[in-house]
Amino acid sequence: MNGSTRRAVLATGAGAALATAAAGLTYAAGPAGATGTPQADVGDDGIVPFRGERQAGITTAAQDRLHLVALDVVTDDRDALRDLLTRWTTAAERMTFGAEAAPGGVVGGGPWKVPQDTGEAYDLAPGHLTVTIGYGASLFDDRFGLADRKPEALRELPAFLGDDLDPARSGGDIVIQACSDDPQVAVHAVRNLVRLGFGVVAVRWSQLGFGRTSSTSQSQVTPRNMFGFKDGTANLKSEDTAALDEHVWVAPSDVPGAAGWLAGGSYLVARRIRMHIEIWDRTPLMEQEQIVGRDKKVGAPLGGSGEFDELDFAKKGTDGEPRIPVTAHVRLAHHSNLDGVRILRRGYNFTDGTDGQGHLDAGLFFLAFMRDAHRQFVPMQRALAGSDVMNEYIEHTGSALFACPPGLGADDDWGSQLFT
Amino acid sequence: MNGSTRRAVLATGAGAALATAAAGLTYAAGPAGATGTPQADVGDDGIVPFRGERQAGITTAAQDRLHLVALDVVTDDRDALRDLLTRWTTAAERMTFGAEAAPGGVVGGGPWKVPQDTGEAYDLAPGHLTVTIGYGASLFDDRFGLADRKPEALRELPAFLGDDLDPARSGGDIVIQACSDDPQVAVHAVRNLVRLGFGVVAVRWSQLGFGRTSSTSQSQVTPRNMFGFKDGTANLKSEDTAALDEHVWVAPSDVPGAAGWLAGGSYLVARRIRMHIEIWDRTPLMEQEQIVGRDKKVGAPLGGSGEFDELDFAKKGTDGEPRIPVTAHVRLAHHSNLDGVRILRRGYNFTDGTDGQGHLDAGLFFLAFMRDAHRQFVPMQRALAGSDVMNEYIEHTGSALFACPPGLGADDDWGSQLFT
Repeated sequence: MNGSTRRAVLATGAGAALATAAAGLTYAAGPAGATGTPQADVGDDGIVPFRGERQAGITTAAQDRLHLVALDVVTDDRDALRDLLTRWTTAAERMTFGAEAAPGGVVGGGPWKVPQDTGEAYDLAPGHLTVTIGYGASLFDDRFGLADRKPEALRELPAFLGDDLDPARSGGDIVIQACSDDPQVAVHAVRNLVRLGFGVVAVRWSQLGFGRTSSTSQSQVTPRNMFGFKDGTANLKSEDTAALDEHVWVAPSDVPGAAGWLAGGSYLVARRIRMHIEIWDRTPLMEQEQIVGRDKKVGAPLGGSGEFDELDFAKKGTDGEPRIPVTAHVRLAHHSNLDGVRILRRGYNFTDGTDGQGHLDAGLFFLAFMRDAHRQFVPMQRALAGSDVMNEYIEHTGSALFACPPGLGADDDWGSQLFT
Repeated sequence: MNGSTRRAVLATGAGAALATAAAGLTYAAGPAGATGTPQADVGDDGIVPFRGERQAGITTAAQDRLHLVALDVVTDDRDALRDLLTRWTTAAERMTFGAEAAPGGVVGGGPWKVPQDTGEAYDLAPGHLTVTIGYGASLFDDRFGLADRKPEALRELPAFLGDDLDPARSGGDIVIQACSDDPQVAVHAVRNLVRLGFGVVAVRWSQLGFGRTSSTSQSQVTPRNMFGFKDGTANLKSEDTAALDEHVWVAPSDVPGAAGWLAGGSYLVARRIRMHIEIWDRTPLMEQEQIVGRDKKVGAPLGGSGEFDELDFAKKGTDGEPRIPVTAHVRLAHHSNLDGVRILRRGYNFTDGTDGQGHLDAGLFFLAFMRDAHRQFVPMQRALAGSDVMNEYIEHTGSALFACPPGLGADDDWGSQLFT
């Protein structure tokens, strides 16, 4: 059954009947609880299981489009926040299998009621929609009694050399990442969750991504970023579960005591990286390749011939210089030069109108999941900020860190998961 | 041959050989000159013919995604502008059949040269890419000797009730509309044309659209806008060539004398319409439907049952009131209430981050082609601005009018078309 057909089936029901049918479908389709089934195990019906040991949208094969929103909680009412997290769970799960955000949906509530779904995805298949939630450090202040549940590693990222962060594009109490192969489906998911949060949360910032810049599965073709280079070739992949355990998933021992709710989850680092593409576009090919450390056409490491060749940092050219320059991006960011640090990248290309100076405002919306941002992203970014020649062409304009809880069992929801 | 395969074939060539092969392909695939073949006649290889009686991207079946850029000319050098228009023609044509923007492209120029294509669409099929050009009234000032070639109807749109236009999102000397089913392909096209224009043009504003809101062919399913309603049901369609001649294409008699270059072209009205979706989303279904004048689920006119039923403005309900309210959007905008005025809509949904007030900045990027904006868009928008209840939920934040020339024959280019 493809996504469209399934939606059509679901759409014929209404109210409670729909909710029941829908719940049955998703439980049948996905692992009902902490079964350990990897989320990357996606059927070809365009439906990614919402529940499981991990949240979907992390190791799930990266979908083509993104809409991400960072929200601030605008109430001090702990129960209202908890209730919203519970309602969000239901809505997100429904939307991931192609149903409307709530029973009743677009028209099922009748003429006198406010529709419980905004409708712009009514006829669309989910396109592997995933909805992933995370919490910022600011949520664990004294408003909601969550202070003791704050994971130790959920503390502000340090400033990096060259940062030009806009507070209006940084931080946030809560993040929702919606990914789908259809951008209208991703936007619809975010929009409906924001709608459900009226009076409880307000949009702090939001980012659309038009093209993925990472593969998170060996089955995916490596995409290209706005520098025109293949990006994320050496990324962690969902198939390498041992590496994911080591580098992506928070271990129980990482979050002792009341912070244990995060065990099995992951940290999300979001960095809005403006690329000065008009300067890059006037740079000769060889210079571009030496800055990146890879060949532009195939994506092979300099000195190699295939995209997935091992990076040989010792290899020298006829001039006696390393084939991969000492300041090349791939060298600085490589785990062999960072005490083994690796991360799961899941970023997107963006274009947001113009910068007001006659240029497109375009770049890379860097998203990466990891076990501890302070032990992984921070040393990596310090190395890059200090030596990467690429810095002449980029600028970090937004930054945020979120703790993303593990997946949900059959009877769990985001409210009970965070608060009890 | 599908788009990917064709690209692969093209990519194996280089320099002049590639250009020749490419030209051969496109001429073989499309009408070589003003043959009158409608541009909507698109093969399933994802390639829309660039040349023909009309520019592609007007009656072409609306692609899923948009990137549009408005540019200002930053030189007074007439020859530089003309030369750019010529170079743009070559690049646009190449990209529409999946080749790189220029011979040499991503890597073919060798290590010491600046790449002639930025590369982010290197592995992507064109996805029905079309590149459409238009010129704003400001281009016909005294800078380039074009004053006498300015079409009479290319004059500023009047102010409308409720307009809240941002000059930074309005106007522009030149517009380039790139549409594709793949947003990365559309962004790549705009970015490379902007790159080619360095020193001659600067970006004034740019807009991404993530989902089409109109069908321009009877073969297309009607999409939904951010109000969740089907949009553009009653749109002009490419199959109705008589209506297009009457309402979309500029007739020779419309543009006498030196303005004759526009005969066979069309005017493009662009309006960025912010939707206050969070208010809309708290409005009961019946109120939404009465504001629009259609049923939300199927898109049928109120009082009808099928999406494509004729609008019956005389029909009354049991309460004696018209089934389609006198202030309904579909009634106010309908040709029967506007002395027969019709337009070809080709708009897109957008989401541009946040408004800074806690809401998503989302809406409809209205694009419409017509024979004379002052006789078509202006009376229509006056009727809507004066009486449409929808105005409580929308705000026009950007506006522009462009004159889009006709299509190009085999030996024509945009430079010679405008300047001689």
